[in-house]
Amino acid sequence: MTSTDTRPVILLTDFGRKDTFAGIMKGVIASISPESRVIDLTHDIDPGNILQASFLLRISYAYFPKKSVFCVVVDPGVGSERNAVCIETRDYFFVGPDNGVLWEAATGNHIKQIIRLTNTDYFLEPISNTFHGRDIFAPMAAAISKRLETLAILGDPVNECVKFYLPKIKVNKSCLELSVLHIDRFGNLTLNLSENEFRQFVQDREFCLAFKDRRINKTYKAYSAAKENEVFLIPASSGYMEISVKNGSAAKMLDARTMDSAALEILSS
Amino acid sequence: MTSTDTRPVILLTDFGRKDTFAGIMKGVIASISPESRVIDLTHDIDPGNILQASFLLRISYAYFPKKSVFCVVVDPGVGSERNAVCIETRDYFFVGPDNGVLWEAATGNHIKQIIRLTNTDYFLEPISNTFHGRDIFAPMAAAISKRLETLAILGDPVNECVKFYLPKIKVNKSCLELSVLHIDRFGNLTLNLSENEFRQFVQDREFCLAFKDRRINKTYKAYSAAKENEVFLIPASSGYMEISVKNGSAAKMLDARTMDSAALEILSS
Amino acid sequence: MTSTDTRPVILLTDFGRKDTFAGIMKGVIASISPESRVIDLTHDIDPGNILQASFLLRISYAYFPKKSVFCVVVDPGVGSERNAVCIETRDYFFVGPDNGVLWEAATGNHIKQIIRLTNTDYFLEPISNTFHGRDIFAPMAAAISKRLETLAILGDPVNECVKFYLPKIKVNKSCLELSVLHIDRFGNLTLNLSENEFRQFVQDREFCLAFKDRRINKTYKAYSAAKENEVFLIPASSGYMEISVKNGSAAKMLDARTMDSAALEILSS
Repeated sequence: MTSTDTRPVILLTDFGRKDTFAGIMKGVIASISPESRVIDLTHDIDPGNILQASFLLRISYAYFPKKSVFCVVVDPGVGSERNAVCIETRDYFFVGPDNGVLWEAATGNHIKQIIRLTNTDYFLEPISNTFHGRDIFAPMAAAISKRLETLAILGDPVNECVKFYLPKIKVNKSCLELSVLHIDRFGNLTLNLSENEFRQFVQDREFCLAFKDRRINKTYKAYSAAKENEVFLIPASSGYMEISVKNGSAAKMLDARTMDSAALEILSS
Repeated sequence: MTSTDTRPVILLTDFGRKDTFAGIMKGVIASISPESRVIDLTHDIDPGNILQASFLLRISYAYFPKKSVFCVVVDPGVGSERNAVCIETRDYFFVGPDNGVLWEAATGNHIKQIIRLTNTDYFLEPISNTFHGRDIFAPMAAAISKRLETLAILGDPVNECVKFYLPKIKVNKSCLELSVLHIDRFGNLTLNLSENEFRQFVQDREFCLAFKDRRINKTYKAYSAAKENEVFLIPASSGYMEISVKNGSAAKMLDARTMDSAALEILSS
Repeated sequence: MTSTDTRPVILLTDFGRKDTFAGIMKGVIASISPESRVIDLTHDIDPGNILQASFLLRISYAYFPKKSVFCVVVDPGVGSERNAVCIETRDYFFVGPDNGVLWEAATGNHIKQIIRLTNTDYFLEPISNTFHGRDIFAPMAAAISKRLETLAILGDPVNECVKFYLPKIKVNKSCLELSVLHIDRFGNLTLNLSENEFRQFVQDREFCLAFKDRRINKTYKAYSAAKENEVFLIPASSGYMEISVKNGSAAKMLDARTMDSAALEILSS
């Protein structure tokens, strides 16, 4: 068996890097499936932040090899009655707690089946009540990486799982009420407005995005086209529109936070 | 030679991620043993903190594949007369400075032999006095990963190495005096009290854990069972008891630090 | 094809770890070249800091296997007219934006050819204007990792690329005016003065390094030889001289920043 006989395992957790939680998960996977390639998507989700994890998984998954196994552990309900699930989609496997964190990504890739992960033969015993990443999710992801004959051996097919949606745009008369979904390390503010939605709404008209005490009415295709200290909109690599500042942090300049609201309207001519 | 012909190398250092120390170690290992799998346990040990590294190594090592090579570089005495050692145990190899950092893990896994790493043929020349991770520990770990015929080729067998123990429980009359061993990213406080020790001491009686100005007398099996803002004890995945708060940071709420003390006693009935 | 048939890809970016930029690049590389080994040099370059990335690449590259492909994304001009290049040197491939960040490393390893990366067949379409790490640099590095027949297929040979030099020593009468190139996580201050330059200038004479309000006139070969709280010079593993404090942070003690200046002179006897 070589590494290309196994499926890549992609880790997305809120375990951080200071502790050894993420390292231990890799140890468990290597013990079960020594040839599996493991890739860190990120471990720095804010503790328990399902919105952030949902968003980052959604904008990232499609860049990984087909049949990758995403092992997602953002799990404030660990040890409670919440289920563990694997959602198989057209191209991927998503393993994690059934708390909605997998939904936005999975539903965008055509869900084929949902398995509730109940087969304790595949768990790491004894199962702690505080670290299912180690005892349930990593072993299950490793098993799927090794190409089981059938996923159904891991548990029971179910028809439903918990759904969690990114905040929707609200239409208020002629105005779109938007939210900041994410702030990246450069201080760019991602809005819950796709580039396509922006173009359809604005067309070639003048617009105004009200955000905090600012009125933003410029878009640029690249950071470099903007002036110093100018706040502008840009279609970002994620497919969403972002509020940005050239060579600076829009988040710092505007004192912005995730879920801050913004309002987009067309200027009357 | 394929990756399963080599032994995994597990890195545990205080080099952080901002610099390229850890990256360079991986370059050295890949140069010597291109097929070796390298896994980060963590690089974010506080500079020179042997207690923290000892603790994290002890609770983590057993989750890695048998015959893994742990390469540990927390080495405030780098460049001094302290030795470099490899401790071979029943299931693992522990490589690092002979300053005690390997002891808690190695002694728990049945020490077979201790080799003082002196064979300069396996060093990266010229040897700096400030980065033995690059010049001694990474090359030695890579050599062991490649399955030497005998470990003794790397240096001289010795009978002793430096021992470093996690702080012990002190028994003061009917009270256990405990210490905070570790604070994780979620703010959970790990005590130097195993779940077994806790159960044997408390049995089914009512207890009181005095910590700072708090009196804690509840245990839960899972975070989700607790009330909001309640401070409680929980048997953690490490095998130790932890002071926790549901969906919050016990460390912040209680202004706690590593090595803070706590006192556990049984309430008279 | 096994992992040793491919060339290692080494990542150096300013993407941080909180977002999924670096993870996505690994997904892209794994999709194009599943067997390629990917090693993180660091992702924590300060946003857009070409000096820091240049320095770290220069002191690190030689520790990686020959024919490694360095994929460097510190790219404040992303989306502008700046080119993407691959510099092939005697032993390595350096891929990144043509903004100078590759120069110090490449020029030290005997440049063989420079290719402007223009062949869009190797890009990930559609190309964003904000994330060429994903759409250009990762795919190009993956292609080179897979051993193309000729590098020239990726674009056009050019004679020149943008040069960026680390700050030079200034000679002012009998005094060397130096700069702090880098501050590492331990708070050591790297000067733009190599150990060889230091020895040639000082020989066996007494010296004085004026830095802020300090006068430093001691060198030690190892941290452990110094006294507590003493500020001293040490030849560091990078080959440069560093200002250090034993078991402490020189940066904090001296309130130092990158590009602070220092003056070295010989004491008259």
